[in-house]
Amino acid sequence: MTTQQDCRALDAQDPLRELRHQFTLPQGVIYLDGNSLGVLPKTAAARVAEVITQEWGQDLIRSWNSAGWFDLPQRLGDKIAALVGAGPGEVVVTDSTSINLYKVLSAAISMAAEEAPGKKVIVSERSNFPTDLYIAEGLCRERGYNLRLVEPEGILDALDKAAAVLMLTHVNYRTGAMHDMAALTAAAHAAGCLTVWDLAHSAGAVPVDLHAAQADFAVGCGYKYLNGGPGAPAFVWVKPQHADRFRQPLSGWWGHAAPFAFTPNYRPAAGITRYLCGTQPILSLAALECGLDVFGAAEAVGGMDALRSKSLALTDLFITLVEERCAGHGLGLVTPRDHAQRGSQVCLSRSQGPHAPPLRGSLPPEGAVTVLGRPGDGDSGAYAIVQALIARGVLGDFRAGSGDGRQPDILRFGFTPLYIGFEDVWHAVEHLLQVLETAEWQKPEFNQKHAVT
Amino acid sequence: MTTQQDCRALDAQDPLRELRHQFTLPQGVIYLDGNSLGVLPKTAAARVAEVITQEWGQDLIRSWNSAGWFDLPQRLGDKIAALVGAGPGEVVVTDSTSINLYKVLSAAISMAAEEAPGKKVIVSERSNFPTDLYIAEGLCRERGYNLRLVEPEGILDALDKAAAVLMLTHVNYRTGAMHDMAALTAAAHAAGCLTVWDLAHSAGAVPVDLHAAQADFAVGCGYKYLNGGPGAPAFVWVKPQHADRFRQPLSGWWGHAAPFAFTPNYRPAAGITRYLCGTQPILSLAALECGLDVFGAAEAVGGMDALRSKSLALTDLFITLVEERCAGHGLGLVTPRDHAQRGSQVCLSRSQGPHAPPLRGSLPPEGAVTVLGRPGDGDSGAYAIVQALIARGVLGDFRAGSGDGRQPDILRFGFTPLYIGFEDVWHAVEHLLQVLETAEWQKPEFNQKHAVT
Repeated sequence: MTTQQDCRALDAQDPLRELRHQFTLPQGVIYLDGNSLGVLPKTAAARVAEVITQEWGQDLIRSWNSAGWFDLPQRLGDKIAALVGAGPGEVVVTDSTSINLYKVLSAAISMAAEEAPGKKVIVSERSNFPTDLYIAEGLCRERGYNLRLVEPEGILDALDKAAAVLMLTHVNYRTGAMHDMAALTAAAHAAGCLTVWDLAHSAGAVPVDLHAAQADFAVGCGYKYLNGGPGAPAFVWVKPQHADRFRQPLSGWWGHAAPFAFTPNYRPAAGITRYLCGTQPILSLAALECGLDVFGAAEAVGGMDALRSKSLALTDLFITLVEERCAGHGLGLVTPRDHAQRGSQVCLSRSQGPHAPPLRGSLPPEGAVTVLGRPGDGDSGAYAIVQALIARGVLGDFRAGSGDGRQPDILRFGFTPLYIGFEDVWHAVEHLLQVLETAEWQKPEFNQKHAVT
Repeated sequence: MTTQQDCRALDAQDPLRELRHQFTLPQGVIYLDGNSLGVLPKTAAARVAEVITQEWGQDLIRSWNSAGWFDLPQRLGDKIAALVGAGPGEVVVTDSTSINLYKVLSAAISMAAEEAPGKKVIVSERSNFPTDLYIAEGLCRERGYNLRLVEPEGILDALDKAAAVLMLTHVNYRTGAMHDMAALTAAAHAAGCLTVWDLAHSAGAVPVDLHAAQADFAVGCGYKYLNGGPGAPAFVWVKPQHADRFRQPLSGWWGHAAPFAFTPNYRPAAGITRYLCGTQPILSLAALECGLDVFGAAEAVGGMDALRSKSLALTDLFITLVEERCAGHGLGLVTPRDHAQRGSQVCLSRSQGPHAPPLRGSLPPEGAVTVLGRPGDGDSGAYAIVQALIARGVLGDFRAGSGDGRQPDILRFGFTPLYIGFEDVWHAVEHLLQVLETAEWQKPEFNQKHAVT
């Protein structure tokens, strides 16, 4: 059996252990939700204050040049490029993930229409993050394409002669399962199909090599593992050989070849800059840069490879401890055991175990504590367990199942190797065990705050 | 002749004079560029610091609900609605002006295609802000429409049987000329044409009444007269009767009827909420709210009507002083004298006067001081004069002419009634006069900083 002492020993040997001091971690909280909103880099408050008081307050309009505001999309893009196997000048930070997906999916459709005009299908995963599917659905409607949604094991078969674009999220938000980007891209290309990758749950969490995978288009999120702050702008990458060939439809002035010539006709900039549209939120970009700079510091202690090793060790430990200590409580493992197929999170399902009588009717009032999600249709208890954990300061989240038994309700725990330690994992499982053993989520007092010991 | 004493007297009588204390105004600067980037509200630094350290740093993911992050687009939208003659729940703050224009123009085209399928032309002004034209150009290409660009005096004639949508910026960014929104909307409707209004240079600067004008769609900017900070998110309004009838193409999860149901199919939310797409930059939204709250304070001293009166008095004074004091230096007035046709800025052109020998070759190095724009092709001197003013702490900006004589080079001065005083106008013209009389912009030392006296 793994002990708390074992976990402490792992922390003592961890070459990345000092990185957590670059972040503000709230007292009494074990934060297993960095896959949803990353924590605060300690430099961010001072940096944003400087932007506000000096660059905006004193230098005003002059800061567009003197403080480099205009170049932030490219400057931050270069920092992200280094994390996802892209070259300098190939990534820009701008807009939201959904909007960037609209841009690249439009360009991919235009490219497919030229290279393989008979192909009219976009293939994706049914359990892809919904906004990706919504964006694809809208574009399909506009352009006369069909969106074909399949289970993960059906992807290869779906790459048939009608398939124009394969659009996938690299690490699934619900299950934590990671696709083999290189293999699927190769399969797609063999079928005459382009690839669009959403790196929302990958960038900063798992190694990504867009060049090596020969990917075509990619987008990703700034506020999850990149710790850029709530709603931080997103990023977009296009394979350099494609970038100049097609336009994206959001043809705003920041993507113009000469934005300050103020000519009435649009002329797209060269390369990835044409994927910019309008003026960007500078305060939010400044905070994101602080998040990205921690990865610069991580380089000195092993960089992305060391982060990946630690992430796998953390998720392995969590799986082991849950299996060793929480057996008999109806928990199941949703995330793959195979390292090659695992992102940086672990998702558990729950069926009714002997200690889990039906919970229907005993859910706490909505909003009493915060969970992103809604109670499932079933009576798995997953929602209430996550609520009880949050009340104890262990922040994970709940994702409702499909209600038809196809997808279970999920308890989701993200493990960010930059700031989560091995003893944190011990404490998290200890709390989970206490919640399950005492069935405290069924009791009226479960909303009260427990100290994390 | 108007005297400095007269200007002081106007300040003493100004019911809005205390509002300037709600902003940080840099020492030694007369800021006549609030039409490009508004100044810093004094509350913004502390408010954003609270969002960073408490809401993000301590409360983390819980703040989406507990701090009301999810509702910011609607909450801020309601505050803007009050400034533009829209009702509560009709405006959302989100994304950039260009992206919001793409949304409403798409919806307008869809609506026109249904109601008047033969009409295939979008009418706009040739000197509309270029990004608006770029967005329209892209959509026209996608949807098989034509973009017809006309001079302001040609708009009514352009509303022919092919015209589907009239897309205008209410106050022109180059000239400061303001359209009659109600009259043009009525003319457009009479011609079976929908209207899309860009309020970038109107919201917070001039009274706007979208309901009274019976406008169809509108967008606007958060970082100009609304003082929301660099790149603050923009806003979008759709006439309530249209809002539920059409989709906008950027169908992301924030615009879904039930975003946290995580269903694979898109179902647009009711009303303006369907114009949201992805997650929004919370730090930048928080700063914008501080800018909007000053308008709440302005309500107590006359609100938008008092702001409009003062704006006209400021621009009248500037025109009068330039004409009284700077005659013979080749300056011309581009902005209309008629109050009904004037926004909150004054634009001057310059031809060669007796004191202005050709400047070609004597321009300062790019970047020595900051001007948004580029030297004109001609030798008007306008670029160098604006540079010389900036070096003296009088911040306006330069907009290059068309180069073919159709549009002159422009010196642009914005007068924000919330924080510009009448004596500021006196000082600005005094500096302009000194620059013109001494021709100092031609001298090597003109880059040095002059104190504003």
